[in-house]
Amino acid sequence: MKPLRVVVWGENVHEHKHPTVAKVYPNGMHTVIADALKASGDDVEVSTATLQEPDHGLTTERLAQTDVLTWWGHMAHGEVKDEIVSRVQKRVLEGMGLIVLHSGHYSKIFKRLLGTTCSLTWREADERERIWVCNPGHPIAAGIDTCFELDREEMYGEPFGIPAPEEQVFISWFEGGEVFRSGCCWRRGNGKIFYFRPGHETFPTYYHPMVQRVIANAVRWARPEGVWIDACPNIKEPREEIQPKEV
Amino acid sequence: MKPLRVVVWGENVHEHKHPTVAKVYPNGMHTVIADALKASGDDVEVSTATLQEPDHGLTTERLAQTDVLTWWGHMAHGEVKDEIVSRVQKRVLEGMGLIVLHSGHYSKIFKRLLGTTCSLTWREADERERIWVCNPGHPIAAGIDTCFELDREEMYGEPFGIPAPEEQVFISWFEGGEVFRSGCCWRRGNGKIFYFRPGHETFPTYYHPMVQRVIANAVRWARPEGVWIDACPNIKEPREEIQPKEV
Amino acid sequence: MKPLRVVVWGENVHEHKHPTVAKVYPNGMHTVIADALKASGDDVEVSTATLQEPDHGLTTERLAQTDVLTWWGHMAHGEVKDEIVSRVQKRVLEGMGLIVLHSGHYSKIFKRLLGTTCSLTWREADERERIWVCNPGHPIAAGIDTCFELDREEMYGEPFGIPAPEEQVFISWFEGGEVFRSGCCWRRGNGKIFYFRPGHETFPTYYHPMVQRVIANAVRWARPEGVWIDACPNIKEPREEIQPKEV
Amino acid sequence: MKPLRVVVWGENVHEHKHPTVAKVYPNGMHTVIADALKASGDDVEVSTATLQEPDHGLTTERLAQTDVLTWWGHMAHGEVKDEIVSRVQKRVLEGMGLIVLHSGHYSKIFKRLLGTTCSLTWREADERERIWVCNPGHPIAAGIDTCFELDREEMYGEPFGIPAPEEQVFISWFEGGEVFRSGCCWRRGNGKIFYFRPGHETFPTYYHPMVQRVIANAVRWARPEGVWIDACPNIKEPREEIQPKEV
Repeated sequence: MKPLRVVVWGENVHEHKHPTVAKVYPNGMHTVIADALKASGDDVEVSTATLQEPDHGLTTERLAQTDVLTWWGHMAHGEVKDEIVSRVQKRVLEGMGLIVLHSGHYSKIFKRLLGTTCSLTWREADERERIWVCNPGHPIAAGIDTCFELDREEMYGEPFGIPAPEEQVFISWFEGGEVFRSGCCWRRGNGKIFYFRPGHETFPTYYHPMVQRVIANAVRWARPEGVWIDACPNIKEPREEIQPKEV
Repeated sequence: MKPLRVVVWGENVHEHKHPTVAKVYPNGMHTVIADALKASGDDVEVSTATLQEPDHGLTTERLAQTDVLTWWGHMAHGEVKDEIVSRVQKRVLEGMGLIVLHSGHYSKIFKRLLGTTCSLTWREADERERIWVCNPGHPIAAGIDTCFELDREEMYGEPFGIPAPEEQVFISWFEGGEVFRSGCCWRRGNGKIFYFRPGHETFPTYYHPMVQRVIANAVRWARPEGVWIDACPNIKEPREEIQPKEV
Repeated sequence: MKPLRVVVWGENVHEHKHPTVAKVYPNGMHTVIADALKASGDDVEVSTATLQEPDHGLTTERLAQTDVLTWWGHMAHGEVKDEIVSRVQKRVLEGMGLIVLHSGHYSKIFKRLLGTTCSLTWREADERERIWVCNPGHPIAAGIDTCFELDREEMYGEPFGIPAPEEQVFISWFEGGEVFRSGCCWRRGNGKIFYFRPGHETFPTYYHPMVQRVIANAVRWARPEGVWIDACPNIKEPREEIQPKEV
Repeated sequence: MKPLRVVVWGENVHEHKHPTVAKVYPNGMHTVIADALKASGDDVEVSTATLQEPDHGLTTERLAQTDVLTWWGHMAHGEVKDEIVSRVQKRVLEGMGLIVLHSGHYSKIFKRLLGTTCSLTWREADERERIWVCNPGHPIAAGIDTCFELDREEMYGEPFGIPAPEEQVFISWFEGGEVFRSGCCWRRGNGKIFYFRPGHETFPTYYHPMVQRVIANAVRWARPEGVWIDACPNIKEPREEIQPKEV
């Protein structure tokens, strides 16, 4: 099989504005995620793209060469140009995989593909999150034990305003008493979409080996299996003879 | 039960531009659809709205008083203001039902809620369509025999670029040799969405008793069963005590 | 609307074998559930049936007069006759609603309709369960706040061996650290199926007003909306002429 | 990747009872299907099993070594032992793929996994079937044009008594006027299930290159992606401390 071409997209704003975040991710969250993916196997080719690049680093040409895109954004969702969102959506519908991370639940692209509010409840209180596997045989859960823990995370709680997931891979337990559908799969067109909850910018979540493992599994799960270049063709020639009708 | 408040939305452009259409629907397609719904029972309160009205007839106040909206549009999809589309989407997610008719498959609101291309193949050849019931017990198929025929219709064919329907109510057979998923259900948020294929503007499809019956069934099926006014609240107080963490 | 005819089915064995259970439910769990449903409104007609009755109380005639069946079983799943299971399944596929409670996850009828193992993890440790609403607009969650608590319950944990729920209404948080998909909806044929987790026999769970409210909501949600008496008919007469083929 | 181990199961009764069938499939339908799969690539290892073998050729040991099972049966569904059906079901839930062909819609294993009647309408009239692709990017449709035709087939028509397919790959058009959901995907546990309609025993359907291509695609699509050996473990040790409760 050809290597899987993954682009790790990072909003890359918190890292420059908030010293706490810069300390945890001095070269940006996207770099840590990309490095982990590179280390996960020779079967992936990983690069990064950020909001600040021309076209947010997502030109038509580059997207055409991308198999799976991962997306982390938060405070600058509104700065992502609608034209680029449409471009990404088109590629997902054709077959490109999309892995949406944490606060990406409110990204334009996630809401565009799901059609719902994607809202949730939240709390920043340095609390323990325990992520449970709902299907130990799912490829995104490969190598993950029955559960794993993040000692300090932001809480996301239900209700989560999403269409019913086609597959539920993870659900989170929070120390403060909430639960959340932390790992959810959908298909839109030929693209596979996976949402994965952890990843608050002030915590070293993306250095956690189990978080890295899940993302590494997810990009491989989201590999395009086929492409449909969509159109709305006028089929002038019928396959069967059409009888003239009396009007 | 309180009467179901239905708004029948019509693009209302073909009827004024194309004499053929004006002849079939002198007062607009929306009027014929609305009249049929009014005649379908005392449990519905029906009114109409069109593209040409201020806010396309869909002010925030009116939508707040609407239980189910039906949508027919075609040549002027692009003239529907994005702001109104967002307003309708918000109400659907809260719980309002939406019945999308025929060429409404390419309306902004349908694509917005489904997230996919919603494309299909098509042919205008005055051909016979036979609409088969996939589930004789489905409320939208109540009173419909195993199938019914429309003697002259536009053809819509697969592939239809939609997420997998949650319920398949009808599938069409076409004289020229194609098939199409003609009656499809989805939920987005608390809103129920039904797509119903027939209704080309040059044919008297909306006068057909079985087509009228399906639409009458569908608006009742789409009655809101609950409302969720969405937010993204910060839950400062945890339900359980959170232990201080070492950093 | 005609009253909804509900049959509350109880295995009715623990109550006679285990003094602890008999103390909590001296007339059986089914009686408490039935009484709560009777008190929930005049729109329901409630009766009970138990394992010990002829045909387990579920004759063909009675099932034909039943709109919604609730099911609690545990230690005697194996004593339920396959013939009766097939009879119940047939009625569900025709349109009867089915509410499966707690340890009913391992009942023959639930496994028969879902096709999966329906397994889970569990612990009896008198721990707190907090049941979160995943969709505040869902009719089964009507009148339920964002969550409610059961002070002492058995724990059920993920993975839960079910097909992806078509709607996720509740997810549980457990004091001991687990999570569970506590309220799940599916359709099979024309029957609506709801699984609701709480209800360990040694605790007074079915006296809890929120648990009673959920069950009262669920039976109304599961009301049949149509009936399909299934067959596999030979359609000798085609609708269109079939051309003779060369062999 | 390791070769995919495919077992082609054939009921193998019609071929011995009906001269017409014996003429078309002198060595059995299963042989033709298996030969086509063998010719489809070196990445598959194909063998056959039949009703008449001990354990119907499906011992626990053999199933443990099987990645994907294809199933054709018709007149002898009732002779398949329930014990073997349970064994196959267990393996599917663990992760084995299952391809159900034509009259296999009424097999015990298909009904067991789907939970519904799986009924349909039918007609034997040597009529043309045209199979349309609903998603040109789906791996099961790879190499298939927009549609393909079978000149003479049995008709299967809607309603088809199945749970809503998770993916709709094909829909059939019939010369006599019917339609049918001809290619449907579901997951049960970790097993992928694909139903494919064509294959009446009196016609040379399984020699058709497009039918062979679909089956070859389908077994590869159904490759296990993970395994879950299910249990219902008692988790005695909680992850979090449980407070003693007042009784």
